[in-house]
Amino acid sequence: MRTQVVIIGSGPAGLLLGQLLTNAGIDNVILERTSKVHVLSRIRAGVLEEGTAAMLDEAGVGERMRAEGLPHDGFDLAFDNRRHRVDLTGLTGGKRVLVYGQTEVTHDLMDGREAANAVSIYEAGNVQPHDFDGDHPFVTYEKDGKTHRIDCDFVAGCDGFHGVSRRSAPEAAIETFERVYPFGWLGIIADVPPVGQELIYANHPRGFALCSMRSKTRSRYYVQVGAEERVEDWSDQRFWDEIRSRLPGRTAEAMITGPSIEKSIAPLRSFVAEPMRFGRLFLAGDAAHIVPPTGAKGLNLAASDVRYLFDALREFYLEKSPAGLDDYSNRALARVWKAERFSWWMTSTLHRFPDQGTFGQRIQHAELDYLFQSRAALTMLAENYVGLPF
Amino acid sequence: MRTQVVIIGSGPAGLLLGQLLTNAGIDNVILERTSKVHVLSRIRAGVLEEGTAAMLDEAGVGERMRAEGLPHDGFDLAFDNRRHRVDLTGLTGGKRVLVYGQTEVTHDLMDGREAANAVSIYEAGNVQPHDFDGDHPFVTYEKDGKTHRIDCDFVAGCDGFHGVSRRSAPEAAIETFERVYPFGWLGIIADVPPVGQELIYANHPRGFALCSMRSKTRSRYYVQVGAEERVEDWSDQRFWDEIRSRLPGRTAEAMITGPSIEKSIAPLRSFVAEPMRFGRLFLAGDAAHIVPPTGAKGLNLAASDVRYLFDALREFYLEKSPAGLDDYSNRALARVWKAERFSWWMTSTLHRFPDQGTFGQRIQHAELDYLFQSRAALTMLAENYVGLPF
Repeated sequence: MRTQVVIIGSGPAGLLLGQLLTNAGIDNVILERTSKVHVLSRIRAGVLEEGTAAMLDEAGVGERMRAEGLPHDGFDLAFDNRRHRVDLTGLTGGKRVLVYGQTEVTHDLMDGREAANAVSIYEAGNVQPHDFDGDHPFVTYEKDGKTHRIDCDFVAGCDGFHGVSRRSAPEAAIETFERVYPFGWLGIIADVPPVGQELIYANHPRGFALCSMRSKTRSRYYVQVGAEERVEDWSDQRFWDEIRSRLPGRTAEAMITGPSIEKSIAPLRSFVAEPMRFGRLFLAGDAAHIVPPTGAKGLNLAASDVRYLFDALREFYLEKSPAGLDDYSNRALARVWKAERFSWWMTSTLHRFPDQGTFGQRIQHAELDYLFQSRAALTMLAENYVGLPF
Repeated sequence: MRTQVVIIGSGPAGLLLGQLLTNAGIDNVILERTSKVHVLSRIRAGVLEEGTAAMLDEAGVGERMRAEGLPHDGFDLAFDNRRHRVDLTGLTGGKRVLVYGQTEVTHDLMDGREAANAVSIYEAGNVQPHDFDGDHPFVTYEKDGKTHRIDCDFVAGCDGFHGVSRRSAPEAAIETFERVYPFGWLGIIADVPPVGQELIYANHPRGFALCSMRSKTRSRYYVQVGAEERVEDWSDQRFWDEIRSRLPGRTAEAMITGPSIEKSIAPLRSFVAEPMRFGRLFLAGDAAHIVPPTGAKGLNLAASDVRYLFDALREFYLEKSPAGLDDYSNRALARVWKAERFSWWMTSTLHRFPDQGTFGQRIQHAELDYLFQSRAALTMLAENYVGLPF
């Protein structure tokens, strides 16, 4: 088989890139290690920057998102037993975010891909990019007991942190940067109305908590837990008691609880691999970088990588210019590092750290206090939260 | 002897408080452990916030400062071999800072005190505040082989980090917060024209550097050095070579060198003691808190403590209200913690840390990069640098 771009990974990065390429008349094939059902079962973030939502519109798959997504003009930071609102729209000259689950984004993109008759190969085993340092790369994979080969111009590695793409780059050519945080997020989903209309991020002596939602009837709640905690030790009741203890009294009282329909613990990590291009292999999204979930930048950062990569590929095919491809890694990384900085800052400011000491706690408190006394500081938070420009 | 307020310490905090009290007709005595010459030999920071300069005017000692001080509308941050200007005046709606050495401030305040015939007792040994938990405190000291006693209404502890005032507070009543940074500043003074008209703060892989000045013909330069470094190991030539290696090429080339007239290494520390009031004993300045020198907040923070303490004492004597005194510790600490946060942030962003790793270095770089792409972020830096409102 031959195509122009082989995309490894059928998560939102790969699907969005595929959709934009297909619409532009650039042939592409998506190879996915797991099944469609498995991809759709992954539970991830759900806060879209305007730039991300606009790309979904541009890809022609934004209709349901616009109908069902919840536009949010702000969010709350809770500390000292009080909630303080961050007026995103007022601070950024009219910008907002859209609450719409990543699973739904993936769903809409899969539907769009099916409607466009573009090829996705699921349950493709042992996917392996080859010869991407030359002009004639190809990708092999195994399916139905046979090894298949797809020749292509470019390979887009959109297969996440654990995927094969980054691991295929020569070790000497890649530099990685990492911070592992000494805690995780215990998250649940429950079919109860969210306690607030907007998100509530809480800094509390017992640890961080987040009240989020998927819809007006489905809540997504999190509490910071020690890195060694096991989800089996957290009954629903224990979870509800814990999150209530970390919220301002009136918020805790107003919280409606119910049985969880999902419960899991996720570790928190910052990670960047440089560069994001190796010859004709390009990394995008989690394959190249991970942010901790605080601030919800993961999916949005994948979308901005796709923005740069799609523009570069279109430029290559339609204008015969390799300039965008040559510039891809630098452009993407400049924005990646700003989002890494913001996610690190928001994580550092809102969580308890085992080694921060009382001085560190007071600095955290001073930071929160200062935010709500300085329009400049709050604007800094808001402009990052709604997303820096591409 | 009897007075209304005994001030322990004849540094800028004690002298400024004394001058304001004297002008308001409130009797006070300053007790200083060392000699006048010794106090004047201390070399300290030299960047005054507008609020600090205004207090020196209000105290009637601002004339020479206004004539000889250098108003600065901005400063430079250097990284990636380039200088980036922070336009303080443009970002803060017209504010600026005044470069005028702390030694000169002390000198002017001492002259003012002498002209007002207010009492300062130098070389007062074994100063000790007593009974400040009751209504009739007194302070004892030794001089000329005799023990003396001064009865008073209040004791102001302005005797610095190592002074007796904070150590006199009951241990159980005080909580301290501290961070010691794993490096120091090696600083020199030389009678050469400063390399820039404004200050230059440099972040460099070899470590932090600062180009400052005392006047148009006297430069004050610093480089970050390891905590274990000894000043004896730093010849003038080694210092000049080192600071040049950390500055952008054209700045390094333009630097005029000459023999140092002072050379020393200072450790960097963040420290806060809470509360700042113990009955009728009030702490102000370094007696209660230390900031690392990055951002030049030490003297300015002492001045803001004096602002609150003087207003409170005037209110007590002139309006018979203890409200300001009761509120002093909370008011002062709210501003102290914001300055602690800023000094910690500026220190963290500009220095190399032995344990920051490559991820931490990239975050630092992203922070600097972001500063010069976001007006909000740069405004945050500027508004703190010129001084938050009292």
